[in-house]
Amino acid sequence: MSVHTTQVRLARRPQGLPDEHTWEVTETVLPSPKQGQFVVAVDHISLDPAMRRWLNDVRSYVPPVGIGEVMRAPATGTVTESRHPDYAVGDAVSGWFGVTEHALSDGEGVTHIDTGLAGPPTWLGALGLPGMTAWFGLFDVGRLQDGETVVVSGAAGAVGSVLGQLAKAHGCRVVGIAGGPEKCAWLRKIGFDEAIDYKADNPLERLRETVPEGIDVFFDNIGGDILDAGLANLRRGARVVICGAISAYNAEKLPEGPRRYMSLVVSRASMTGFLVLDYEDRYPEAIEGINEMIRTGRLFARETIVSGGVRAFPEALLGLFHGINTGKLVLEV
Amino acid sequence: MSVHTTQVRLARRPQGLPDEHTWEVTETVLPSPKQGQFVVAVDHISLDPAMRRWLNDVRSYVPPVGIGEVMRAPATGTVTESRHPDYAVGDAVSGWFGVTEHALSDGEGVTHIDTGLAGPPTWLGALGLPGMTAWFGLFDVGRLQDGETVVVSGAAGAVGSVLGQLAKAHGCRVVGIAGGPEKCAWLRKIGFDEAIDYKADNPLERLRETVPEGIDVFFDNIGGDILDAGLANLRRGARVVICGAISAYNAEKLPEGPRRYMSLVVSRASMTGFLVLDYEDRYPEAIEGINEMIRTGRLFARETIVSGGVRAFPEALLGLFHGINTGKLVLEV
Repeated sequence: MSVHTTQVRLARRPQGLPDEHTWEVTETVLPSPKQGQFVVAVDHISLDPAMRRWLNDVRSYVPPVGIGEVMRAPATGTVTESRHPDYAVGDAVSGWFGVTEHALSDGEGVTHIDTGLAGPPTWLGALGLPGMTAWFGLFDVGRLQDGETVVVSGAAGAVGSVLGQLAKAHGCRVVGIAGGPEKCAWLRKIGFDEAIDYKADNPLERLRETVPEGIDVFFDNIGGDILDAGLANLRRGARVVICGAISAYNAEKLPEGPRRYMSLVVSRASMTGFLVLDYEDRYPEAIEGINEMIRTGRLFARETIVSGGVRAFPEALLGLFHGINTGKLVLEV
Repeated sequence: MSVHTTQVRLARRPQGLPDEHTWEVTETVLPSPKQGQFVVAVDHISLDPAMRRWLNDVRSYVPPVGIGEVMRAPATGTVTESRHPDYAVGDAVSGWFGVTEHALSDGEGVTHIDTGLAGPPTWLGALGLPGMTAWFGLFDVGRLQDGETVVVSGAAGAVGSVLGQLAKAHGCRVVGIAGGPEKCAWLRKIGFDEAIDYKADNPLERLRETVPEGIDVFFDNIGGDILDAGLANLRRGARVVICGAISAYNAEKLPEGPRRYMSLVVSRASMTGFLVLDYEDRYPEAIEGINEMIRTGRLFARETIVSGGVRAFPEALLGLFHGINTGKLVLEV
């Protein structure tokens, strides 16, 4: 049984923000699965800031997406045809299926998901890579101690919103930095002690007022002035965890670095980068912990869902960089 | 017995490099020691990059030097008069005596030095705070493993030259970054595997050629482009140790930060600041280790000695920022 499917491929590497020349939408007939393969009908596709970095032709932790290749993306779906012993028709799965309506898979990097526990969008958010990133970034890289002061930037995003709630569950004081009053209001609603609107206020000065005790863990998704604001307000022995730098991903040249990095000396602090992919073996531990918190009402998983199918991917990705999402941004296929 | 002494005091906080308005030379009659005090005739005064930071009126790990106060400095000398049970006339000592010919002390922060083991300048260098900085920065903060690749900037300075030799003694490949062919030649002579002259070459490109395996420990005294060169060449799991940023200490505004800090993510690396003063309880361990290496000919301690007494301090300090020294820069009183 051959399947007609629509896919989004990389046509040209962007300078700055991706535009209409970056992508190509193609119609393909998917080959029938061979022994050990199966077909997935994709229902939701993840939109992640890191995607922008995969478009650059530079050595990094993963190879860049090649010109003409289907855009790389985590996604969820249902098995529709299978010649693989571990995947049966009807199974709900999550994996790196890409920006496509259907995918042929050999099972590598694919996991079963329990959609009775949480819907597919949550399996791309709090129970997906963003949730794993928050968990290992906070507990392993950030070495969180109960009762510490935690500040997270990009706080209303997929990673930040989970991270702040995890820290609250450990008796921490948690301050989020986010863009706009709605996001800040939501952060307070889900338990953040304070939320700083970086579009309205100077984050460096507001942090000075809000966390006079200093920051123990600063978890940064943004970079630029916001990272500097954190560096200027560290407590002795602080851990700065570098997750991302969304403010810089579309810059056409290498932006300025954190001017206040010498605060690391005065505060005897560290700044550490990490990649969640290194923790793959331990995802079950994080999924179990986060799922238990969702189930008992101690963690709110939120997604912003964009409709329109794979053809809406280019615009949805731009939306991510314009901050349209509260919680995880997901494209519905 | 009252002592006439010459001292250098801070007259005005400098913008940029200190100049003739920064300092005031005063003649003072030192009061006689009371019970629990003693007088030291200072013979050598340390010149340190960190001194420049102590002149700024900002919150830091130590209070700034106050206007009208004797300039803070580590120094060595001989006890000439004592009413303190632990210090006898003739004892050789090291302490924070300041830029002065004589100092009155109550013994706080003062240690006896064995000038039979090494001369007073070495007690301000390899066996003083620079040596302690190298030891704890490399082994504790840098968590050095035998056989790793170590790159140190400011390699021909007081800290860098000791650090490189410590790493060599642990079977490491060691590359130093220094300014000028003479310093680089000296580094090769004392056992560095390679030396990069940042005045003649592009350190980022030269590191790429010199350490294709990547850097495990990058120990930075300089900041700016040199820190970026290190960040661009990290191996997975690298430790960047921030000791200082001499390139920035005289800047009139906050200089740019390390543009390539996102390498910390790709390399799963950390960047950590530290202050040697936190290791005070453990100085004896480092002194014993370094002294043993000096004694057995495995570590060369070198000092550049400036004469002229305390009145020569202002010019000698500028010399430090112009890189006149190979090894530790010391002022002879």
